Amino acid sequence: MAPPTEAYELPRLDPSVAAEAHRRWATLTKPEGSLGRLEELAERLASIRGDPRPRFRRKTIAVFAADHGIASEGVSAYPASVTAAMLENFLAGGAAINVLSRLVGADVVFVDVGIDAEPRPTHASLRVARIARGTRNFAREAAMTHDEAERAVEVGSAVADSVVEAGTDLLAIGDMGIGNSTSASAMLAALTGRPGVDVVGPGTGLDASGVARKARLVDAALRDRAIDANDPWSVLREVGGFEIAAMAGAALGAAAHRVPVIVDGFIATVATVWASRIQPGLPAFLVPSHRSAEPGHRLALDRLGLVPYLDLGLRLGEGTGAALQMLLCEAAARLLDEMATFEEARVAGRVRGR
Amino acid sequence: MAPPTEAYELPRLDPSVAAEAHRRWATLTKPEGSLGRLEELAERLASIRGDPRPRFRRKTIAVFAADHGIASEGVSAYPASVTAAMLENFLAGGAAINVLSRLVGADVVFVDVGIDAEPRPTHASLRVARIARGTRNFAREAAMTHDEAERAVEVGSAVADSVVEAGTDLLAIGDMGIGNSTSASAMLAALTGRPGVDVVGPGTGLDASGVARKARLVDAALRDRAIDANDPWSVLREVGGFEIAAMAGAALGAAAHRVPVIVDGFIATVATVWASRIQPGLPAFLVPSHRSAEPGHRLALDRLGLVPYLDLGLRLGEGTGAALQMLLCEAAARLLDEMATFEEARVAGRVRGR
Repeated sequence: MAPPTEAYELPRLDPSVAAEAHRRWATLTKPEGSLGRLEELAERLASIRGDPRPRFRRKTIAVFAADHGIASEGVSAYPASVTAAMLENFLAGGAAINVLSRLVGADVVFVDVGIDAEPRPTHASLRVARIARGTRNFAREAAMTHDEAERAVEVGSAVADSVVEAGTDLLAIGDMGIGNSTSASAMLAALTGRPGVDVVGPGTGLDASGVARKARLVDAALRDRAIDANDPWSVLREVGGFEIAAMAGAALGAAAHRVPVIVDGFIATVATVWASRIQPGLPAFLVPSHRSAEPGHRLALDRLGLVPYLDLGLRLGEGTGAALQMLLCEAAARLLDEMATFEEARVAGRVRGR
Repeated sequence: MAPPTEAYELPRLDPSVAAEAHRRWATLTKPEGSLGRLEELAERLASIRGDPRPRFRRKTIAVFAADHGIASEGVSAYPASVTAAMLENFLAGGAAINVLSRLVGADVVFVDVGIDAEPRPTHASLRVARIARGTRNFAREAAMTHDEAERAVEVGSAVADSVVEAGTDLLAIGDMGIGNSTSASAMLAALTGRPGVDVVGPGTGLDASGVARKARLVDAALRDRAIDANDPWSVLREVGGFEIAAMAGAALGAAAHRVPVIVDGFIATVATVWASRIQPGLPAFLVPSHRSAEPGHRLALDRLGLVPYLDLGLRLGEGTGAALQMLLCEAAARLLDEMATFEEARVAGRVRGR
């Protein structure tokens, strides 16, 4: 039933590349280890790129948007119409991710994987690849068909293919979709065997009773939907979202091209937890960004063995945390590449025995 | 004995400016509070600038360098000659702070407040304002005279005056000086009444016995030097450093001009703890950057009531953490200024009662 995983086969990472980057750090004009986590970050980027001194020439933020049938259960502080309205805001350049992409110097591409709205005029930054006008309400039926799930993942991998083809060597993935923290919570619960209470949070700003209702909806879906915990495709089909599927596909697609994938917050991280069930080697190609205020994010990150670099209490999505992380990736890579060595700068090294 | 504090008098901050920034956040197209600490950061910057939508046109990183007599006690993993050699590396563009200043788009100015080396040729990025060729060894005598202490502080405030005059509206302060974590630890111990063990750490990479020796030197200085804990000038004179004094002066000078001061790691933070004894209103003009790996940093930050934005395990100095924080300041200010409002973007607001 599941499509062949060879479609998303990942390259082998050569440990000698990260080791070479690690050795270079020790030669640079600074106390050993004094750049802290930026050193490990640069080594990770080197490993993924297969280049001991990686540089990034074209950065792209891909934001995937779709609607969710579960939104009709009142699981968001905002009405479902906000997904389509925010797409217009993205295309007009007024959203947070627009501001940050300008700051970071990244291209940004918006992908409509299934917004529930009338078609809109074309736009240079928009790709329309709607699977349907939103998923179905998983409180009542499967969110999507198996065919829709596969096609949604392929939308993401095709976006990755095309931006990499155009020169992208660092990709950030983000999301927009009213109701999607409920879909992501249900997916994470199904993938980890945890109850709703462990995986839900306020999302865009639900109050305590809203969060409790969300947890009950997740628990009911785990009981009522035909989920086989050993089959990630059944999880996606029963309780997933189109933009979540597409982010998973984008991560797999970029990783296949050795392009590091910066993962945004809770929704994007759950997408990569799912994608890691398709390709268990995926986490080595991912770069965490921030620790979201959404409580389930920690669980999702732990599953991937990733520790975020930023902890700013962000809970916006859109790829905003990933965009900020692009700056740290640039910093880490440039430091490794551009700093002078002790020998070049004729700076004395450590005094032995201190 | 102490110079008149009016020299560093700070402007009054009008709380209505931060409140106006806070109200604007609520109108922008994102869930309320979803930009987390970036929202509070932008409000702080607005307050300091007296502008509810501050923008930064010229960013400057000022790195103050000097030598320390205490280095002859073997308190650093590196020989004292590294201070002068690193200045050459700075001027050649090969150090970490050079790489980051290019990434951040900031000017960088290096200030020799008292390096122990022969004079070097002039350089466009260098200001020479040597108080002496290093401080004296505070294990044996006062680190500097009262007059030297005052002049070192004035070096920093003069640097702040001149870069602000040239258009700088965001200043980062950083340090270079072999032995300076020992001077900073002794200052912090004197200013807080804590024993050496609470304020020392590995600095550039001392081993455990080196750290223990450092703590003993701090305790001995607190006992043997003529420190009056109620007189910050006596603390600076007895156990301080020229670049630490200059960073304090730069922070006071920039604050007087309503220019936010981004504080780097342990050494720079101790400089601002000292400066806050001169002007208790100073912390409101400071922007913390990262949490250093140096254990005493937490104590220094707590004294100022500041919570850092980055926690990357950095322990390099040079203003490297502050340079990264410039990016977060830019991000916060631009988001506040450039994002569309719900009304402008015609995006629906919250559903009441969820």
